[in-house]
Amino acid sequence: MFSVLIKSAVPKYRKLLLPAQTFIRTMSSSDGPTSPYTTLTISRPAESITHVQLHRPDKLNAMNKAFWREMVECFNEITEDKDCRVVVVSGAGKIFTAGIDLMDMANDILQPKGDDAARVSWNFRKFITKYQETFSVIEKCPKPVVVAVHGACIGGGVDLITACDIRLCTQDAWFQVKEVDVGLAADVGTLQRLPKVIGSRSLVNELALTARKMYADEAKSSGLVSRVFADKEAMMAGALEMAGEIAGRSPVAVQGTKINLIYSRDHSVDEGLHFMATWNMSMLQTEDLTKSAQAAIEKKSPKTAVFSKL
Amino acid sequence: MFSVLIKSAVPKYRKLLLPAQTFIRTMSSSDGPTSPYTTLTISRPAESITHVQLHRPDKLNAMNKAFWREMVECFNEITEDKDCRVVVVSGAGKIFTAGIDLMDMANDILQPKGDDAARVSWNFRKFITKYQETFSVIEKCPKPVVVAVHGACIGGGVDLITACDIRLCTQDAWFQVKEVDVGLAADVGTLQRLPKVIGSRSLVNELALTARKMYADEAKSSGLVSRVFADKEAMMAGALEMAGEIAGRSPVAVQGTKINLIYSRDHSVDEGLHFMATWNMSMLQTEDLTKSAQAAIEKKSPKTAVFSKL
Amino acid sequence: MFSVLIKSAVPKYRKLLLPAQTFIRTMSSSDGPTSPYTTLTISRPAESITHVQLHRPDKLNAMNKAFWREMVECFNEITEDKDCRVVVVSGAGKIFTAGIDLMDMANDILQPKGDDAARVSWNFRKFITKYQETFSVIEKCPKPVVVAVHGACIGGGVDLITACDIRLCTQDAWFQVKEVDVGLAADVGTLQRLPKVIGSRSLVNELALTARKMYADEAKSSGLVSRVFADKEAMMAGALEMAGEIAGRSPVAVQGTKINLIYSRDHSVDEGLHFMATWNMSMLQTEDLTKSAQAAIEKKSPKTAVFSKL
Amino acid sequence: MFSVLIKSAVPKYRKLLLPAQTFIRTMSSSDGPTSPYTTLTISRPAESITHVQLHRPDKLNAMNKAFWREMVECFNEITEDKDCRVVVVSGAGKIFTAGIDLMDMANDILQPKGDDAARVSWNFRKFITKYQETFSVIEKCPKPVVVAVHGACIGGGVDLITACDIRLCTQDAWFQVKEVDVGLAADVGTLQRLPKVIGSRSLVNELALTARKMYADEAKSSGLVSRVFADKEAMMAGALEMAGEIAGRSPVAVQGTKINLIYSRDHSVDEGLHFMATWNMSMLQTEDLTKSAQAAIEKKSPKTAVFSKL
Amino acid sequence: MFSVLIKSAVPKYRKLLLPAQTFIRTMSSSDGPTSPYTTLTISRPAESITHVQLHRPDKLNAMNKAFWREMVECFNEITEDKDCRVVVVSGAGKIFTAGIDLMDMANDILQPKGDDAARVSWNFRKFITKYQETFSVIEKCPKPVVVAVHGACIGGGVDLITACDIRLCTQDAWFQVKEVDVGLAADVGTLQRLPKVIGSRSLVNELALTARKMYADEAKSSGLVSRVFADKEAMMAGALEMAGEIAGRSPVAVQGTKINLIYSRDHSVDEGLHFMATWNMSMLQTEDLTKSAQAAIEKKSPKTAVFSKL
Amino acid sequence: MFSVLIKSAVPKYRKLLLPAQTFIRTMSSSDGPTSPYTTLTISRPAESITHVQLHRPDKLNAMNKAFWREMVECFNEITEDKDCRVVVVSGAGKIFTAGIDLMDMANDILQPKGDDAARVSWNFRKFITKYQETFSVIEKCPKPVVVAVHGACIGGGVDLITACDIRLCTQDAWFQVKEVDVGLAADVGTLQRLPKVIGSRSLVNELALTARKMYADEAKSSGLVSRVFADKEAMMAGALEMAGEIAGRSPVAVQGTKINLIYSRDHSVDEGLHFMATWNMSMLQTEDLTKSAQAAIEKKSPKTAVFSKL
Repeated sequence: MFSVLIKSAVPKYRKLLLPAQTFIRTMSSSDGPTSPYTTLTISRPAESITHVQLHRPDKLNAMNKAFWREMVECFNEITEDKDCRVVVVSGAGKIFTAGIDLMDMANDILQPKGDDAARVSWNFRKFITKYQETFSVIEKCPKPVVVAVHGACIGGGVDLITACDIRLCTQDAWFQVKEVDVGLAADVGTLQRLPKVIGSRSLVNELALTARKMYADEAKSSGLVSRVFADKEAMMAGALEMAGEIAGRSPVAVQGTKINLIYSRDHSVDEGLHFMATWNMSMLQTEDLTKSAQAAIEKKSPKTAVFSKL
Repeated sequence: MFSVLIKSAVPKYRKLLLPAQTFIRTMSSSDGPTSPYTTLTISRPAESITHVQLHRPDKLNAMNKAFWREMVECFNEITEDKDCRVVVVSGAGKIFTAGIDLMDMANDILQPKGDDAARVSWNFRKFITKYQETFSVIEKCPKPVVVAVHGACIGGGVDLITACDIRLCTQDAWFQVKEVDVGLAADVGTLQRLPKVIGSRSLVNELALTARKMYADEAKSSGLVSRVFADKEAMMAGALEMAGEIAGRSPVAVQGTKINLIYSRDHSVDEGLHFMATWNMSMLQTEDLTKSAQAAIEKKSPKTAVFSKL
Repeated sequence: MFSVLIKSAVPKYRKLLLPAQTFIRTMSSSDGPTSPYTTLTISRPAESITHVQLHRPDKLNAMNKAFWREMVECFNEITEDKDCRVVVVSGAGKIFTAGIDLMDMANDILQPKGDDAARVSWNFRKFITKYQETFSVIEKCPKPVVVAVHGACIGGGVDLITACDIRLCTQDAWFQVKEVDVGLAADVGTLQRLPKVIGSRSLVNELALTARKMYADEAKSSGLVSRVFADKEAMMAGALEMAGEIAGRSPVAVQGTKINLIYSRDHSVDEGLHFMATWNMSMLQTEDLTKSAQAAIEKKSPKTAVFSKL
Repeated sequence: MFSVLIKSAVPKYRKLLLPAQTFIRTMSSSDGPTSPYTTLTISRPAESITHVQLHRPDKLNAMNKAFWREMVECFNEITEDKDCRVVVVSGAGKIFTAGIDLMDMANDILQPKGDDAARVSWNFRKFITKYQETFSVIEKCPKPVVVAVHGACIGGGVDLITACDIRLCTQDAWFQVKEVDVGLAADVGTLQRLPKVIGSRSLVNELALTARKMYADEAKSSGLVSRVFADKEAMMAGALEMAGEIAGRSPVAVQGTKINLIYSRDHSVDEGLHFMATWNMSMLQTEDLTKSAQAAIEKKSPKTAVFSKL
Repeated sequence: MFSVLIKSAVPKYRKLLLPAQTFIRTMSSSDGPTSPYTTLTISRPAESITHVQLHRPDKLNAMNKAFWREMVECFNEITEDKDCRVVVVSGAGKIFTAGIDLMDMANDILQPKGDDAARVSWNFRKFITKYQETFSVIEKCPKPVVVAVHGACIGGGVDLITACDIRLCTQDAWFQVKEVDVGLAADVGTLQRLPKVIGSRSLVNELALTARKMYADEAKSSGLVSRVFADKEAMMAGALEMAGEIAGRSPVAVQGTKINLIYSRDHSVDEGLHFMATWNMSMLQTEDLTKSAQAAIEKKSPKTAVFSKL
Repeated sequence: MFSVLIKSAVPKYRKLLLPAQTFIRTMSSSDGPTSPYTTLTISRPAESITHVQLHRPDKLNAMNKAFWREMVECFNEITEDKDCRVVVVSGAGKIFTAGIDLMDMANDILQPKGDDAARVSWNFRKFITKYQETFSVIEKCPKPVVVAVHGACIGGGVDLITACDIRLCTQDAWFQVKEVDVGLAADVGTLQRLPKVIGSRSLVNELALTARKMYADEAKSSGLVSRVFADKEAMMAGALEMAGEIAGRSPVAVQGTKINLIYSRDHSVDEGLHFMATWNMSMLQTEDLTKSAQAAIEKKSPKTAVFSKL
């Protein structure tokens, strides 16, 4: 339904052929082969980089029931996948995502179960908590997640990208906190993370209370994204280059950095420093430190060092 | 006194005739008719929108004793007023506000009471706590508050606007954290809220420690305001349009959004998500959800739906 | 070593002659004369202003063992020095700082002590905690600290400046969160303070995870610095002018403002207001309030008032 | 209704004649005479001591609508009453209280208002929050509150006494967390305060989940009460004696102690110490300190000193 | 191994025949039949009561690898099982549990994996976090858990019981925080929960730092357990009776009580009250309230009411 | 002065000859010999045990200016002393301590410095904060501290013992929170730590608000102390035996236990578990684990293992 609503607003996109985007499910889990996802495609565009693509292009990557489940499975696998050091998330087709697939999920939301209002509440709470987890897994995954947004990023899409670590977009991208338009307060992450992701509280409130669109320029100046690219092709190249920079560095350093940045967000500076010291008391014992220092002394890039898997 | 100080700096304003700004005290409280405020005027410029105007134009809307009390009464009434869904705050006359009316309040501040320094402290603490409440009521009111600043916003004015949800200003507006100039650390909200309202801590510190003026452009680029308008007329039109957008949406969604945005500011993301799920377990049982979804399916604006009062 | 690495990137700087920068160690502590620092120079460029200069110019102000200790001593002295009301920090020579002096500190970091991994961890924890203190003293010092960055600010330099209150830089300055390049998560403040200092979390993550350089323009637009100057001379003049503005105001007001701004960062708004009221219940009993008010009534600058030492 | 339920369980009480318990509404507020309460009686049994008596003896002091409102008014008055330094709370008649008067309040609880489940929730939340305030006022009142329980203390009674500072009871008293028996989780304080009031979490859970009665001996050994008396007469004498001890000491010391004890409960030790230092920086400037020290040097009781009102 | 160590200290137990303890795996999950656990037996001794028995009697119920996994599965099932309203946990055989089965787990703990100390740490952290979950599931399960301890409760056993809601024991039971004896700080819950479960911090520290045994009397007087029974038979009867009391009350009330008691433990009173109001705004809309009130009016036990499943 | 006040109340003590209590200052610090303390004596009654004795017996161990400074120095040394694994604190002479030596400190407290009330406050705050540190060092020292109280423990003495880990006392000991008697709220720890040390909040409030004495039996039943001994001789023997139990176990386990117990006190269970996992990820890599496990397998006491210094 949402897909329908925004179809007209979507600009045409030329076919994108991401180099090496051959569809391979490379992340082997220890418990045998997994059946491919129906809403996501997973590939390995370069060493140590996992590319997760929202992949229901004919439905504008709207988030149906399968999606909410598959994201959790997918990021749990990525967390365990020792060959992956960084993740790129993007959307297939015309836009990044139209948000929640209200048609597919209508009976869960509009026809709740329970013998009285308290029991309906009880069930709704479990339901919301489960769906919050779909994006929290991105944050719990210690590997940095770069998200690349083109076209439109609506409703649940904003919930998704605020849980990622680095946000990029194309010049024609727009963002919309859509939930008030369908009669609810956004409950899977936007209201919690957006204010900690961009610096202007007035803007956050305006977006969340009026559901107006925000375009690429404002997304950049407000700090929602840290880079804007001319088009999707340029953005994907940029995303992969950035991912390559991250993947080439010590995973002990990189993943410790992500974990501590998230810890810091939710704690005072003193608490953050205390945790950091307790974290690094062991992590400084990595051989990556010597390898990286050696590279530095030899005036080589840290990417020339070979680090053990983590 | 402050009024005197800044009078020369204030540009001339042409008379503003806000449509429908006929002075009516529409908010009927259950305990009978209330006498009109002496420092505020209240009107209903459009359905579900309450316009609160700082209204001591000859004193540059300086905040005297009556003001501190009337703001609390006014916002308590607004909180209870089921016909109000959104609030616009602005200032009458040449500027938004010159801040605290030091002349009117001098004997409270400069001639404190108490038999010894401890007892003076005791009384000051009650006094400060009471005055903090004057702006905290804005935050406790679940209805979004859009504040429109023209001319100047000084001292207590900054405390006031940082407690509002959305900040707009005119091109000629300037802002000043004035307190260090009168020998005190700002104690009714600026030091607590300003750093959570704009993204640059260096700027916050500079403003609070040097009392320098910040003009509209910097207010916009730093995120203090989310929109700048050419003049007051344009701003008021813009404020009312924005208020209309908010007022037309489900009050369950809108007020739940405000409450959760404020909760999120003061809690970790995990705590925020947990509260959100507990909040929405009942709020998703609103009929507004079905009405809004219906409008969406029929490709109508959510504002076409008719929502029950809240 | 780091010094070596970045030497080529550093532009030539003309000799800077800061007025009155005669090297005097004016801060007399009660326990007798202190020997001069080896990595810092301290001067009093104007009344009530202390200028701390990172001063190992031939080593690009790299942070060696002595530096970590001397910063603590220096800021402890400043905290006690009643003649100092504001601090300016800058770097001597070509750049602000090349960050940690890895050569000098290599045996501490790369050859840790302890009979087993747990004991090595124990020692590392003490070591990190001690080094965190080097920058936390800046925050614990109640006097505002303005930092002026020219050339480059690398690794430990970013940890340092994020603990300062106001950040300025020259047009040719660049900043680099360097730690992932040497195989570790930054552990003396950057990951804790940077996200609370600038508004864009995407940018923070990008800087910390890729170690890319950020130049002056982006530092300004992101809010890391609040002012950019054409060159170091202009910046130092600007820094001293700003310091003068602060030094001229009531130290009770100024230092109370710093203390409460830092408190607010780490607490909810309600907690911050509560602490503020408890703080000001005594601080409003200062004579500075009357003196400042008097100046205001006489339409004089607050800087004309004479305030007791604090 | 609850009254009915427990009537049979209540032992006979001999008439109690508290010395000086002449019924006088002595707390004169500055805004003129107040009409007497219908559910409480207020007296001044000794200098500086206010005695608040739950006083619907024929209804077993069940908490009706008037009670919830009057408690707030009463403690707000006590907070302002400079002649009161300590409060004793007890119940008139056969028992302390039978808890909520379900009959009187049934239509509020069992026939909620609102057009849909979300709006009913909205109204319930306001209702609960208002009722929580009824007991939170006891905690916000800086004057110590000693509560003396005889006979039975049921449901809302436990919410009430856990908000008091010191709990005493008679040998025949019993306590019952009644709420699960009427189909709800206790929501006006018991679940929040009881675990912080007694040391055994297993016991707290047992009481709250099974609604079993706890008798005086277990109340004493678990720490719910700090003293058990043979009968009500002895208890009231003991309560007044204890109140006299408190009333005779410096009100600056006593009320600062209460405020900081409550602050400490809700914060870490470090936070508590920080607040304490900020509190006492002014409170140590009281003349009470010198007066008390003088008494000590002269080997007199601190009660011989005459302290200014607070 | 631990089993071996304590075997001699274990008193003989007569065979226990719990009425109706016929071994049935009644908790049907929606995804088909589950294979029975190897370390636990599950039964339904009475309506709505699930009995979980640690069941490796020949190994003194030592916690082997299977146990850590099965506890999670078991409590996840219980959480979903609408026919279960309360849980009783006990141990089969001579003692409650000898704690961790060090023999079975030695290679995980004593032969850690990882290419350097940092990577070993990384793996240990995942390992500890996973094992912490084994007991946290008890707390996350909204159904009250009564644990009945006989004989001995050692090491991991204390971690387990402190995560339960109500603790009972036999007269011959003893408890031992064993971890310092094997060279580690207890890391799956004891150090976090024990201090919040009993009132004497001196005792907690003594137990954790000396690993001395605590017997039933001290367990009762310190509040670790709320009841002591003569022998296991009496205890199991008492546990089932108490479970029956809980199971007979409204599950909305009971489970809401558990959830809010745990929330309160980890938050300030104000935060707890705020959450409580938000929780109950929907939960008061249960029909259980009317049913319970009706029973009360008819002077019947709340257990006579029939409540919908939750 | 306080000494004077309580002298009459002190029972006669027979001379105590602690075995091996030869007065030696064994804790060699790396920076050369330290001059002996004037208020403390330090000895090594047994391997790895440091005995700190309050030692101004003729002044009833009243806390004079030197004491506040020496405690900090002493515990800083103990923290660094690798030969010390556990600390015992006791008092020389008739009683444990009479609390603050008001005579010696009168001019600091009663004749404060500062040009106005704000500046006096500023100085008092520094003063209080410094004195709080005197007892916080006990908590920051990772080695367990057992305190043995005989005779009387008054005022500052209660602040001291609540910062220790394990509290023991003689049958004739009494405790008194004395501060309200001298006109101030206790500000160096009692109000913050006592409520987290004993389980009955009613008792804590009673003690702090009335300054009544609490005797050994109530100290034991309330959980303030975990053991009561017949006399000082028996207590010191018991304290040393307990210290020996602790000293014989792995210092990695013991000190990690103390650190995490204190962390847990000030954090939610979830935060505590998270920190614990991050702590133990390195600490489990100690060889002490294997040594302890080996001892356990060989059925030897953990004290037979030889652990490296920490």
